[in-house]
Amino acid sequence: MDSYVFGVDIGGTTVKMGLFGMEGSLLEQWEIPTVKENEGAAILPDIIRSIQAKMDEKGIAQQNVAGIGVGAPGAVDSEGTLVGGAVNIGWKPFNIPEAIKAYINVPVKAVNDANAAAYGEMWQGGGRGSSNMVAVTLGTGVGGGIVVNGNILTGVTGAGGEIGHIHIVDEEEEICGCGNRGCLEQYASATGIARLARRRLAKDGKPSDLREMEAVSAKNVFDAVKAGDEVAIEIAEQFGDYLGKGLAAVAAVVNPEVFVIGGGVSKAGEILLSFVEPAYQRYAFHQCRGAKFVLAKLGNDAGIYGAAGVIIKKG
Amino acid sequence: MDSYVFGVDIGGTTVKMGLFGMEGSLLEQWEIPTVKENEGAAILPDIIRSIQAKMDEKGIAQQNVAGIGVGAPGAVDSEGTLVGGAVNIGWKPFNIPEAIKAYINVPVKAVNDANAAAYGEMWQGGGRGSSNMVAVTLGTGVGGGIVVNGNILTGVTGAGGEIGHIHIVDEEEEICGCGNRGCLEQYASATGIARLARRRLAKDGKPSDLREMEAVSAKNVFDAVKAGDEVAIEIAEQFGDYLGKGLAAVAAVVNPEVFVIGGGVSKAGEILLSFVEPAYQRYAFHQCRGAKFVLAKLGNDAGIYGAAGVIIKKG
Repeated sequence: MDSYVFGVDIGGTTVKMGLFGMEGSLLEQWEIPTVKENEGAAILPDIIRSIQAKMDEKGIAQQNVAGIGVGAPGAVDSEGTLVGGAVNIGWKPFNIPEAIKAYINVPVKAVNDANAAAYGEMWQGGGRGSSNMVAVTLGTGVGGGIVVNGNILTGVTGAGGEIGHIHIVDEEEEICGCGNRGCLEQYASATGIARLARRRLAKDGKPSDLREMEAVSAKNVFDAVKAGDEVAIEIAEQFGDYLGKGLAAVAAVVNPEVFVIGGGVSKAGEILLSFVEPAYQRYAFHQCRGAKFVLAKLGNDAGIYGAAGVIIKKG
Repeated sequence: MDSYVFGVDIGGTTVKMGLFGMEGSLLEQWEIPTVKENEGAAILPDIIRSIQAKMDEKGIAQQNVAGIGVGAPGAVDSEGTLVGGAVNIGWKPFNIPEAIKAYINVPVKAVNDANAAAYGEMWQGGGRGSSNMVAVTLGTGVGGGIVVNGNILTGVTGAGGEIGHIHIVDEEEEICGCGNRGCLEQYASATGIARLARRRLAKDGKPSDLREMEAVSAKNVFDAVKAGDEVAIEIAEQFGDYLGKGLAAVAAVVNPEVFVIGGGVSKAGEILLSFVEPAYQRYAFHQCRGAKFVLAKLGNDAGIYGAAGVIIKKG
């Protein structure tokens, strides 16, 4: 009989779940709500119950489950311990594989959710075919996931790939969510691009369609870029310069084969890369200039793919 | 009978060689000249002959050689291929282990020389006990070697750990050896510190012992710091700020346990760290602030230790 893997991506509102074949096909996907009450005590039992219900439904015996991969919203070390807990869902630090194995004795691996998404993109998404990859998530913040020789780079305290907090601007006066000033995230996230837009529009009176909007979003900026708005193009160039500079620093450290750009901001499409890649080339060390830039492909499913992928690829 | 490992560190003037016991002790060390003529055609045969002479001298049979590790002065990929050649010694690209095995059929591994030195410091030097480390070499340039979970991070084109070429200063007008402007190496290397000193001294007329010197070196700066010279302290603070900022960027990528600072500039001693570490703390992401800073311990022997270490630790 065939073997199966479950990929689980625990978010603040829902837990995304997927049933995968061993060759990497997503056979079914579904969601359950994330019950955060009581320090999230129900979350793991709910996940196990949902997996067991799916096994019953499909007639999958336990010996045919090759494993369960879990992406969790917090720093996870290489043993699967949620080292600092997960404040969004109320979890304190604990070892996730051990806790799951108490319910169902199959191989379990746990990784950080951003790293799971990175791994998913490497395995079946934009980075497919490469085992040295940096996934960049441009959303509310700027996240990163780094894969080196096919392994997720977690770092000693789970902060590997926290590229949104590379210091980029000395003169910044506003404070980043992390408490520092001048982090890449302050310029390259959706909120960062909106900040760049506000600042650019306040600088002078150059005409722009963006002036008619009440609050300019990153999406507004890239829509205006596509319409040829000069001020929007200036903002996008500034964004590209900051992000290119940050990714050039990342390349001087891990020298990846490919950057996979995802997150809400990446919905702008290929035009986004046209601002980032030339800036990257200006700042990158010559041996790193061959790195490719591609868009992420799996969207919100990257996490379940990656969670399943760490089981399947590592055996 | 006991087994032995040879560690070989190929430099532009000499090839450093070491005979190691399997537990990591350096039993003997010696050097041979690096003969660069004819695209360095004699270098490998000279190394093999020297190893075989040492085996004869010590009565070591081939089956008791657990391996030969080689550090080469160029980018080396994970298969041991010198991907871009080694311009300093005239070598074109080739696979080093294959070439050596044509002479003597024992396990062979080749790594970049800076990475070998990093690995040596992790194995028997300042980073001992950690398997997640960044070695920083402050010499004529700024080199780096990164170890993640006990493995050297080479990158796809061998440029992993080229942290000297992280972009730090937008306004720089002088060009770095790599062709870019504003690289960390332009401020944190021995020549970079001398440049900072020239610029600081030219800025105003504040009294300083450094003014009496014809050409101020990095050593002069740190000697004057130790004597309490205020201008020298300002220069050292500027150096520390640049290096701390660069290493904070490195930490946001690989999140190491320890930074091991070596190279000629590090001969200044612990006082050097007193300028780098506070700056690092100012710029580092909070989860990365626990990283330790230590001085390298093995000096010029780090390369042979590391070359032997990649054989012994990896089996």
